[in-house]
Amino acid sequence: MIAVLKNNATEEDKQKVIDLIEELNFEAHPNTGVEKTIVGVIGSPDNRTFLKEKLMTMNCVEKVVVISDPYKLTSWNFKQHKTVIDLGDGVKIGGDELTVMAGPCSVESREQILETARIVKAGGAQLLRGGAFKPRTSPYSFQGLGEEGLKYMAEAREETGLKIITELMDIEHIDVIMEYTDVIQIGARNMQNYSLLKAIGKLDKPVMLKRGMSATIKEWLLAAEYVMNEGNHDVILCERGVRTFGEETRNTMDLSSIPLVQQLSHLPLIADPSHGTGRWELVTPVARAAVAVGADGIMVEVHPDPQNALSDGPQSLKPANYNLMMDELRAIHKTLGSFKAREKKIAFA
Amino acid sequence: MIAVLKNNATEEDKQKVIDLIEELNFEAHPNTGVEKTIVGVIGSPDNRTFLKEKLMTMNCVEKVVVISDPYKLTSWNFKQHKTVIDLGDGVKIGGDELTVMAGPCSVESREQILETARIVKAGGAQLLRGGAFKPRTSPYSFQGLGEEGLKYMAEAREETGLKIITELMDIEHIDVIMEYTDVIQIGARNMQNYSLLKAIGKLDKPVMLKRGMSATIKEWLLAAEYVMNEGNHDVILCERGVRTFGEETRNTMDLSSIPLVQQLSHLPLIADPSHGTGRWELVTPVARAAVAVGADGIMVEVHPDPQNALSDGPQSLKPANYNLMMDELRAIHKTLGSFKAREKKIAFA
Amino acid sequence: MIAVLKNNATEEDKQKVIDLIEELNFEAHPNTGVEKTIVGVIGSPDNRTFLKEKLMTMNCVEKVVVISDPYKLTSWNFKQHKTVIDLGDGVKIGGDELTVMAGPCSVESREQILETARIVKAGGAQLLRGGAFKPRTSPYSFQGLGEEGLKYMAEAREETGLKIITELMDIEHIDVIMEYTDVIQIGARNMQNYSLLKAIGKLDKPVMLKRGMSATIKEWLLAAEYVMNEGNHDVILCERGVRTFGEETRNTMDLSSIPLVQQLSHLPLIADPSHGTGRWELVTPVARAAVAVGADGIMVEVHPDPQNALSDGPQSLKPANYNLMMDELRAIHKTLGSFKAREKKIAFA
Amino acid sequence: MIAVLKNNATEEDKQKVIDLIEELNFEAHPNTGVEKTIVGVIGSPDNRTFLKEKLMTMNCVEKVVVISDPYKLTSWNFKQHKTVIDLGDGVKIGGDELTVMAGPCSVESREQILETARIVKAGGAQLLRGGAFKPRTSPYSFQGLGEEGLKYMAEAREETGLKIITELMDIEHIDVIMEYTDVIQIGARNMQNYSLLKAIGKLDKPVMLKRGMSATIKEWLLAAEYVMNEGNHDVILCERGVRTFGEETRNTMDLSSIPLVQQLSHLPLIADPSHGTGRWELVTPVARAAVAVGADGIMVEVHPDPQNALSDGPQSLKPANYNLMMDELRAIHKTLGSFKAREKKIAFA
Repeated sequence: MIAVLKNNATEEDKQKVIDLIEELNFEAHPNTGVEKTIVGVIGSPDNRTFLKEKLMTMNCVEKVVVISDPYKLTSWNFKQHKTVIDLGDGVKIGGDELTVMAGPCSVESREQILETARIVKAGGAQLLRGGAFKPRTSPYSFQGLGEEGLKYMAEAREETGLKIITELMDIEHIDVIMEYTDVIQIGARNMQNYSLLKAIGKLDKPVMLKRGMSATIKEWLLAAEYVMNEGNHDVILCERGVRTFGEETRNTMDLSSIPLVQQLSHLPLIADPSHGTGRWELVTPVARAAVAVGADGIMVEVHPDPQNALSDGPQSLKPANYNLMMDELRAIHKTLGSFKAREKKIAFA
Repeated sequence: MIAVLKNNATEEDKQKVIDLIEELNFEAHPNTGVEKTIVGVIGSPDNRTFLKEKLMTMNCVEKVVVISDPYKLTSWNFKQHKTVIDLGDGVKIGGDELTVMAGPCSVESREQILETARIVKAGGAQLLRGGAFKPRTSPYSFQGLGEEGLKYMAEAREETGLKIITELMDIEHIDVIMEYTDVIQIGARNMQNYSLLKAIGKLDKPVMLKRGMSATIKEWLLAAEYVMNEGNHDVILCERGVRTFGEETRNTMDLSSIPLVQQLSHLPLIADPSHGTGRWELVTPVARAAVAVGADGIMVEVHPDPQNALSDGPQSLKPANYNLMMDELRAIHKTLGSFKAREKKIAFA
Repeated sequence: MIAVLKNNATEEDKQKVIDLIEELNFEAHPNTGVEKTIVGVIGSPDNRTFLKEKLMTMNCVEKVVVISDPYKLTSWNFKQHKTVIDLGDGVKIGGDELTVMAGPCSVESREQILETARIVKAGGAQLLRGGAFKPRTSPYSFQGLGEEGLKYMAEAREETGLKIITELMDIEHIDVIMEYTDVIQIGARNMQNYSLLKAIGKLDKPVMLKRGMSATIKEWLLAAEYVMNEGNHDVILCERGVRTFGEETRNTMDLSSIPLVQQLSHLPLIADPSHGTGRWELVTPVARAAVAVGADGIMVEVHPDPQNALSDGPQSLKPANYNLMMDELRAIHKTLGSFKAREKKIAFA
Repeated sequence: MIAVLKNNATEEDKQKVIDLIEELNFEAHPNTGVEKTIVGVIGSPDNRTFLKEKLMTMNCVEKVVVISDPYKLTSWNFKQHKTVIDLGDGVKIGGDELTVMAGPCSVESREQILETARIVKAGGAQLLRGGAFKPRTSPYSFQGLGEEGLKYMAEAREETGLKIITELMDIEHIDVIMEYTDVIQIGARNMQNYSLLKAIGKLDKPVMLKRGMSATIKEWLLAAEYVMNEGNHDVILCERGVRTFGEETRNTMDLSSIPLVQQLSHLPLIADPSHGTGRWELVTPVARAAVAVGADGIMVEVHPDPQNALSDGPQSLKPANYNLMMDELRAIHKTLGSFKAREKKIAFA
């Protein structure tokens, strides 16, 4: 951490800053440049935020620059190798294979989810997605089938062998969700619902944490840190677009976040082009881009009959488009695989 | 609602759109312009979102434009007069008087909250703010004193007569919060935590709903709608800044949202310049601006000794600055009051 | 265009709206729904903006919704087939082949540009990029070599056969730029410099128009419209990232803009991952994603020795990384090519 | 400047960083903390950007943190007192009096500008605004009357004594604009048109520089620096709203930028609530807020008959609203004036 003093700071001011730093058991390293005086701080991370806020209240301090990353367990440095999450039956997230989670936005009926499960399984997906409890912007929209929906998903798993991922919105639903799902999804709107994050941190079940609508990379990793800090280290991150001034798509897909987070963290990364664009015509090209940029997998909305979907129809793929997309993704993934060895060689050159 | 057809849409396409609209018991009004064909939709609001999503999945539909507002109970048209929330003992929010909610970010100790309560009461505030359960970006930051903090706040209320506002983060804490607080605060990060919104909608206690970090006006009003739809109509809105590309302040205070929402809704509006700027030097000027723009009140962080605050010290006012701010706000509020009659006359001219 | 009336609008108000519309020689189609009254407008596009602004000034009008697109010449509907720009010697932009424009940010010396030209030519690029007149955020940064730089670029063209693209910042430099370049580049900061756009619209030379830092898709296409409206139809669009709240990358690359604009316009689209990310480690993955999403080409910064670059070193690729990227891009482009026929079949299904 | 090394950086890496710093004649101050190694840099500002970019290209460098401000002449520290620009005849910008620049978006006719000038003069404005050369998003919109418009403005100045401010879009128009105007306005879209900025930096005429649509505070001050660096120190800054995700207003007025820039710079600050909101109903409240936040003045669009304006009618005030606004602004300005002495006392406490 570095405290930058105001241009008119006196020697006495500088001493006060040093005293405060030392009082909290940090080392102070003052340094006077041509224009500015700074005081470097060295010490244990534990009290860092506290010291930072204290320094920022001082009249003579212009700003405080934090050097260290605020996250620890999510950091690449913590583990130094990629996390691979094993769901059993050969389904692994974060490994060499591309993971595809496909299915409808909401479970609408037994028939709908069974039919979709067969389609997405045939196309090559490993997980079935589907919402039973739905966060909707308006209280007047369809809110999901609840446990009934989860039962239908379990039946689909039974028949197809697909694993299940579904959203948890609420601590009260933990028991029922835990009974049915293979991966718990935390939606973008709950990315900073810290009570919920702490609760799932105590569970023994993989969690996929969607990036909040306007979350920075730091905030996203700190949200994962909340989960991991309680003991649950099986966290998957999911980029689903961020909010910008753009008015033509539902969100702006931030694909460069994927290689960026891969440099910072060991956690696997999934991309959701359905929410990232909100328009089915853009889903396939953006899914291709996500694989090309290096995502570990894709979450995508598929519906046997999008026009009659109860939610998110406009961003759902029809079966024929889904199958084409899957073939394209596999082809790109294979193409890139052939460059891995050369990429590593250059990185270490 | 209006469905805009693609330029290459055929007569047959148009007929399919009309059929779908009529099947769902809406009236269809097709209209062919120089460049585009549109189909207007008239009917009850109930199935509107559903119809909209169906139309958007049709290949021949370019876009769907929604004309009606998605919110109802929060709308100005629902009530046609301003909501005034009476907390008792002469404290009203949304009326002629300016409401000031002041206090520390977090309750840190009995002494701290009592001292702050005396200061803010003497300066003219009507409510004491203070967090007992704190949402912090990092799991390693101070998380609040919990019920102990609420007890200290109640003691401060006893002594000073100030009303209390404190944040509810979690359904599990409803009982304990209800026992102590006069107004429940829902934080920006929970603005779309729909389970929580539904739960407080069933309570008999005023709620202040902070605007989410990147919430549009519509989403904010729909979040209020979630609360009101469950029966609790005592909702106060709080503008606390939004996230933009700006890097110099914690958030970008969107002050024009205040007169804008006043046109759309009957709910009272509070501004929070402390979170809106994140820098104490900017709090007073932005608080003045909020009063001048027409806010019903201000929520502001005050600390007897910001340098030793456990959270948000950098954006907390010292007592002397707080007192100056209060005098300025009162003077501006009074100045503007003298123009009210003339404003009304012009508005109806 | 549709005028939406306020809920309290009277019959008399509605008549005034109709009168205004008819006065300007448009047809008015009033329609009263359950909640709102709207008045549809049909007529020639010429006076549309004028009518829209007039309607918006009326007290009884809540909002005006524009249905038609504001651009014409850039629209897909204007031409109904993709624009291919032929630079001669077999170099075409917008056709079946992937176009790569590579080179340093700035021309720094004869040696530097010749060396870079040889590298990018060997790797497979068709155009050499390089700035001679540089727009720099600070007046204290290196501003470019001017005409001397252009001469070195021409020499590099002579030797390698690469075509040249360089930025025009200023009407005053048109003659000198025209003498040397094959494609004129208009930078993001000048996307709405309308004097400059009109001037290049009169030239007989292809233009690449970079998207402004916070330009919507509409504004970008309207900027192209300024050029085309003066007669120059050889316009290439270049996505180079937009400004968002993200703090970790120079810009946020908006890759979904590429398939989106391809639906709206016939113009070719290039992606610039160097400016889009600002970090060389992200350039290759984002370039791959751009090809996978369907871009017609890539503009990329390459420097024989980035550490000694006079500008943009941090986002420049070293030769070895450039070569790897080129091989990857070609492989992805070829992989996707094999799906073209099937994509078309599904689109028309 | 501080170079932060990657966690896996070796002693040899650190030495390379030090060598590079010293090679460019800076001092290097390495410092190894608990988690990170940093190298502080001290030296003359001249080569700073160059060194920064070199450091960022090094594999072992995680990031470079710049401590000093990149602007010099615009900085408060350069002058240590507020700039007051004297236009003659008692009109001063940046002094104790509130400056009001009012008038139509575009000069449309002799009658329109003369009538508006009389209205705004009677209401208390000191400058008449009006565009003769107009930057319009669409090439099909009204582009201004050109020199004819300037002549009408000069006639209005003759009659009313108002000073004139009008926009310069283009180096080619410098002579004609210089002949008529008292203050040159540079629009938001040209804030980073560096050729134009350099050209007006050589003129002997005050310049008002509008903030770009997505310009950071730093970029805005650096744009002013371009002008001042050429010799013209009479620069006024104008906040006119920034682009955000907000969809209800034309821009999002960033009022906290005003006290923020006042801390960083000595230049006067004007607020433009007309462009900042795009809706006349919001103009008056936001203008009041701008005065309350501490702006030195207001630029506002007024039209005798907004419904018949050729541009920006929807955001133009009618005369009656303008007069009410002026009375309110004067009252707030006077109210705040009475606190100045107390504010200063507290600031120096």
